[in-house]
Amino acid sequence: MPGNTFGERFRVTTAGVSHGPGYLCIIDGCPAGLPLTVADLLPDLRRRRPGQSTIVSQRDEEDVPEIWSGVFEGLTDGTPIGLLFHNRDARSQDYEEIKEKYRPGHADFSFDAKYGIRDYRGGGRSSARETLCRVAAGAIAKKLLARIGISIVGYTSQVGEIAAQIEDPATVTLDQVEANAVRCPDPAAAAAMIERIEEVRKQQDSIGGCCTLAAVGVPAGWGEPVFDKLKADLAKGLLSLPAVTGFEYGSGFAAALARGSQHNDPFIRSEAGAITTSSNRHGGMLGGISTGLPIVCRVAIKPASSLPQPQPTVTRAGEPTTIATRGRHDPCLVPRFVPMGEAMMALVLVDHALRHQAQTLWPHHDASSGGAR
Amino acid sequence: MPGNTFGERFRVTTAGVSHGPGYLCIIDGCPAGLPLTVADLLPDLRRRRPGQSTIVSQRDEEDVPEIWSGVFEGLTDGTPIGLLFHNRDARSQDYEEIKEKYRPGHADFSFDAKYGIRDYRGGGRSSARETLCRVAAGAIAKKLLARIGISIVGYTSQVGEIAAQIEDPATVTLDQVEANAVRCPDPAAAAAMIERIEEVRKQQDSIGGCCTLAAVGVPAGWGEPVFDKLKADLAKGLLSLPAVTGFEYGSGFAAALARGSQHNDPFIRSEAGAITTSSNRHGGMLGGISTGLPIVCRVAIKPASSLPQPQPTVTRAGEPTTIATRGRHDPCLVPRFVPMGEAMMALVLVDHALRHQAQTLWPHHDASSGGAR
Amino acid sequence: MPGNTFGERFRVTTAGVSHGPGYLCIIDGCPAGLPLTVADLLPDLRRRRPGQSTIVSQRDEEDVPEIWSGVFEGLTDGTPIGLLFHNRDARSQDYEEIKEKYRPGHADFSFDAKYGIRDYRGGGRSSARETLCRVAAGAIAKKLLARIGISIVGYTSQVGEIAAQIEDPATVTLDQVEANAVRCPDPAAAAAMIERIEEVRKQQDSIGGCCTLAAVGVPAGWGEPVFDKLKADLAKGLLSLPAVTGFEYGSGFAAALARGSQHNDPFIRSEAGAITTSSNRHGGMLGGISTGLPIVCRVAIKPASSLPQPQPTVTRAGEPTTIATRGRHDPCLVPRFVPMGEAMMALVLVDHALRHQAQTLWPHHDASSGGAR
Amino acid sequence: MPGNTFGERFRVTTAGVSHGPGYLCIIDGCPAGLPLTVADLLPDLRRRRPGQSTIVSQRDEEDVPEIWSGVFEGLTDGTPIGLLFHNRDARSQDYEEIKEKYRPGHADFSFDAKYGIRDYRGGGRSSARETLCRVAAGAIAKKLLARIGISIVGYTSQVGEIAAQIEDPATVTLDQVEANAVRCPDPAAAAAMIERIEEVRKQQDSIGGCCTLAAVGVPAGWGEPVFDKLKADLAKGLLSLPAVTGFEYGSGFAAALARGSQHNDPFIRSEAGAITTSSNRHGGMLGGISTGLPIVCRVAIKPASSLPQPQPTVTRAGEPTTIATRGRHDPCLVPRFVPMGEAMMALVLVDHALRHQAQTLWPHHDASSGGAR
Repeated sequence: MPGNTFGERFRVTTAGVSHGPGYLCIIDGCPAGLPLTVADLLPDLRRRRPGQSTIVSQRDEEDVPEIWSGVFEGLTDGTPIGLLFHNRDARSQDYEEIKEKYRPGHADFSFDAKYGIRDYRGGGRSSARETLCRVAAGAIAKKLLARIGISIVGYTSQVGEIAAQIEDPATVTLDQVEANAVRCPDPAAAAAMIERIEEVRKQQDSIGGCCTLAAVGVPAGWGEPVFDKLKADLAKGLLSLPAVTGFEYGSGFAAALARGSQHNDPFIRSEAGAITTSSNRHGGMLGGISTGLPIVCRVAIKPASSLPQPQPTVTRAGEPTTIATRGRHDPCLVPRFVPMGEAMMALVLVDHALRHQAQTLWPHHDASSGGAR
Repeated sequence: MPGNTFGERFRVTTAGVSHGPGYLCIIDGCPAGLPLTVADLLPDLRRRRPGQSTIVSQRDEEDVPEIWSGVFEGLTDGTPIGLLFHNRDARSQDYEEIKEKYRPGHADFSFDAKYGIRDYRGGGRSSARETLCRVAAGAIAKKLLARIGISIVGYTSQVGEIAAQIEDPATVTLDQVEANAVRCPDPAAAAAMIERIEEVRKQQDSIGGCCTLAAVGVPAGWGEPVFDKLKADLAKGLLSLPAVTGFEYGSGFAAALARGSQHNDPFIRSEAGAITTSSNRHGGMLGGISTGLPIVCRVAIKPASSLPQPQPTVTRAGEPTTIATRGRHDPCLVPRFVPMGEAMMALVLVDHALRHQAQTLWPHHDASSGGAR
Repeated sequence: MPGNTFGERFRVTTAGVSHGPGYLCIIDGCPAGLPLTVADLLPDLRRRRPGQSTIVSQRDEEDVPEIWSGVFEGLTDGTPIGLLFHNRDARSQDYEEIKEKYRPGHADFSFDAKYGIRDYRGGGRSSARETLCRVAAGAIAKKLLARIGISIVGYTSQVGEIAAQIEDPATVTLDQVEANAVRCPDPAAAAAMIERIEEVRKQQDSIGGCCTLAAVGVPAGWGEPVFDKLKADLAKGLLSLPAVTGFEYGSGFAAALARGSQHNDPFIRSEAGAITTSSNRHGGMLGGISTGLPIVCRVAIKPASSLPQPQPTVTRAGEPTTIATRGRHDPCLVPRFVPMGEAMMALVLVDHALRHQAQTLWPHHDASSGGAR
Repeated sequence: MPGNTFGERFRVTTAGVSHGPGYLCIIDGCPAGLPLTVADLLPDLRRRRPGQSTIVSQRDEEDVPEIWSGVFEGLTDGTPIGLLFHNRDARSQDYEEIKEKYRPGHADFSFDAKYGIRDYRGGGRSSARETLCRVAAGAIAKKLLARIGISIVGYTSQVGEIAAQIEDPATVTLDQVEANAVRCPDPAAAAAMIERIEEVRKQQDSIGGCCTLAAVGVPAGWGEPVFDKLKADLAKGLLSLPAVTGFEYGSGFAAALARGSQHNDPFIRSEAGAITTSSNRHGGMLGGISTGLPIVCRVAIKPASSLPQPQPTVTRAGEPTTIATRGRHDPCLVPRFVPMGEAMMALVLVDHALRHQAQTLWPHHDASSGGAR
């Protein structure tokens, strides 16, 4: 596969560039019968949108998609959902310089190396603007998940060295996240983060951070063994987003420091009689399959590569030069990343929900003694 | 896809359980003309093998595969390579207890939740023994890559809080790695790691760690844009391995702390006249596409879940109990993980090499001004 | 996969319905560097278009696509090609009746059975209007193939019992095909066919027929062994088109009557010294792999199901009724099918060209004695 | 995909050659809980087996697979089913001649053209012996289908010009088929067919024929719209079998002769109140989706290419020569094809059953007026 499609059963295919007419997005595999209108897609698209506050990019796009197919009389009809996004605020003149100069940290050079041809306008295909397709598809995935009791919330958990103090990511609410511009549910940390981002912005610089994501309500049993482990597909989905440089779930890299006797989550019987664990260092997945506990993961996001300050680089011909980003830019990518991360998590979960169904068409063996059903 | 296949163009499909007759592995997509014998597969299989030293599991398996197809008169012939591994040292009696008790940190519970039926002998399908298929397939992938000048080396970079001091992962050699039982090319750190693992083993405990992987010689231009970024497929491949809880490439989670002005790698012209970067915080990938610099990543590996000491858990019926692993176990998984990690990296790279070919059948536009070709 | 994507390496994904805003088509995997404009797509779209003559449907659509992405400064740039088709002549009022009545021979009933919801306007997703996406994608595939010396020509070889007399399908030219409205290169048969179709049209009826397709210039060695044989993928591609009820290649169903001694094509050495066969009953494929001879196949196309005359059927509630098609309809589908069949053949061939490349990245064994290289 | 895997959700991957150690077959995606033993696979393997009677090949193979994984305590456990077939009667000496000579009608030449290397022993990977993997996998698929009331029966419907007279293929029983060596449920035609095949065998020749296949009990709604139509996937599955040169379903090529007014199957309400059609010229599929009527298709099978009589050909170096098959051969392939055809039909149907499930996880819209649910 050439790489512009995500998912096996709930498949998202996108096309488009940041400074062409717009983006096409085809979502194939959505079950029939889901009520759906453009209004369902707008909240997350607005969260992703540039220009929400002074701490994110100022590009002003409406980003209201047109639904061309897949919805009939207000309901999905089982046929592929076709979405269209027009590019309205594409200022091509801002980008003439990058035709000849390789922007540090961007994909200009690697695209040239791959294709020999490159749409140099605003990053072309490598522009993060493509993620609006993912966010729209993710909104549909979230709506499907919500119907079976699953909710997904992401938030900014770190900006530079400022970390949010959150006891349990699975208890964070959307309202808490949206209470401030940086999307951090710890108000004190949020204030410090915003201050830091403003400071960085004034320095014509950018800063990295982390986003934590939690899915609550995922039943035990999702994820395929061996290669398509749920953790593996989450890692892929999240690393496929621009600027993500790391992924961990549960205890993550801290597990490298741990002893097994303290790291294993003991199984217990809950008050309701179900089998569960008394802690969740396993991030809701064992053997790559969900356990019924919240699925929790965290990603690292590098500082935005585009900077208003001049950076050393070379031209396509190899001549030393400098480049400064004159257009809009994000001093910190994390706040706008939050809906993107949620979207990819939702897409992975819906896909695995549909894949897990193989176990339901034909009746299971009636296991007599216990079992997790 | 039900999850037992990896790759698009160089596809590995495995079947088998740890205490059945053995494993089947089908490798589809290997080009014809590669000299191949069982001897090519043995070195990495021996590195993965239990019982190499006192710091890893003592299970004694020969792990010599039979090649049933795909090789004719010493050369791959383009048809699928069929490998067979016999299980010779499967002591089923060791595992009767886990039929009724859920081992903490293992997939027993989640498999029951998924399938309602579980091969309880030694982890069944979730046993890490399945990785011998991957290591064998990876050895073939490595051999293909070597023919076009690409080498892959992994090593133990951390055990608990002991970290190797390695200036540039891309300069580490296989000899350095194999110089000690813990596979750490920093001799001082290696000694401390081995001491720590022995200590943990005596405490009937286990300890986590990290493995660093580097691929040298990958040309610029591999990786597909948007969803199948090289970084995303590496993350998936590595997270699909048992016990891996985190992945990062280049600066990874440290990028969260960084400013863009210090983090971006400036493009320069090399002495040979090629365009490259003066540092490699980007881990050899920009926009998910290789840049020609070494591809460097790191994964976190949790402490082994199986412990000789008793751990609290419940039975399948939910009754509280304890379980202690009586069989073989690894006090630290990282040394044996190294060849597994290398194998997944090799599989991802060969797959992307073959996928990138779409650009070569039909001639590129003859870009006049510069470009990275 | 949910079914709206075709191909592995050259992937076409479509969305849209006949009476919504239009169609989206994403073509992923086209190599960079191919000169491409809308003008390249128009000739085949015009051949597919309704209203070309009195013997086909009179719907009047411009069917000029917009290229939204994948082409930069006149060349494909390796990123997905996004096409947009607006529906301009969608007369929804024509189709209100079929909301409640099942049209015989159409997919109304089976869509209801599958999804429980159905866009009843003009067939919705099952409308043959979707094929304009395929014809556009096929035009790109044809252009790629032409660059390496491969041409594809299809023609109407049968209408009812009137069969074209064509000695060798591989010698038919596009000019011969386009010389008459029925697209039959045998002028005498063409005249009889047109007369027959006119007669059928006056009877408010429709008539079936056959389309023969030939690809000339395909090198030996394309097609994958076992499941993805070239003949199997051609069969799938062509049967995926509406109204196709049969597929055969080479001698096809006539092979059922044959003796092996007469049916086998003897291998010979050509005057140029290459190994070939002296006849082509094998239709250019042996073992599912191309032999270098023309690939020739034939498909059966049923009479159009939509008829102006009343046909017995039931309502959705099961009440007996009749239905007559008031809108446009085709008395014979074959003439407009020709470009669709060519398109699917081109898509299959380009896909296999790209898949075959696995054999080219790493050098072949240097077979000393003969061989077909 | 390199071509040795079939299916999306119920995936069969095979490896092996006719004169190596044997075949590996991995079946991924079988739901857990199906009782399964080797005995379930033997009946169809025996029907496929050479040496059943004088009218088929005399190779004597036991063809009893070993089940290496995927079945635990008598039930499938959701993990991949690994099958092993040993080649016991591989007489390599029979095949030395074909190392240098291209057998007419076989894939020797096209394999050389593709790979540059060829396992010349008995056809290697192109040998029809590979179909024993398919037949075994198909037996599992049939068992799954039987549990939801679906049965599949195939039979020899034509040998040369002798055609069976069968009013309704959907009423043919396995007992009728197995009542004679040629697997034709019309006893008079069967006798004539056997006589003809004996005659052909004595002439050291072979003869072609047709196999008709019917699946009864498939519910309405299976099959994906547009590209993955049920008819398209059946065509692909059947054309992927060796020697198949044509496919048709329902009225097939006879539809080319028909008028729409006579060809359309009128919808009616059955006595039980369900919506159905009064005839089945549509072969159980409309718009590529099942209608609930029997799915009926027919394939053409060419005369076996291997003949005891000398046939003209060339050597790999292009020198004219002759070749005669000294080993076992089939004077007519159709009787042994019957279980192969059934197997591919079963694999396609199980795959689509699992794919159709996307419509069942989330509840459908409650369509008030009628509908086919």
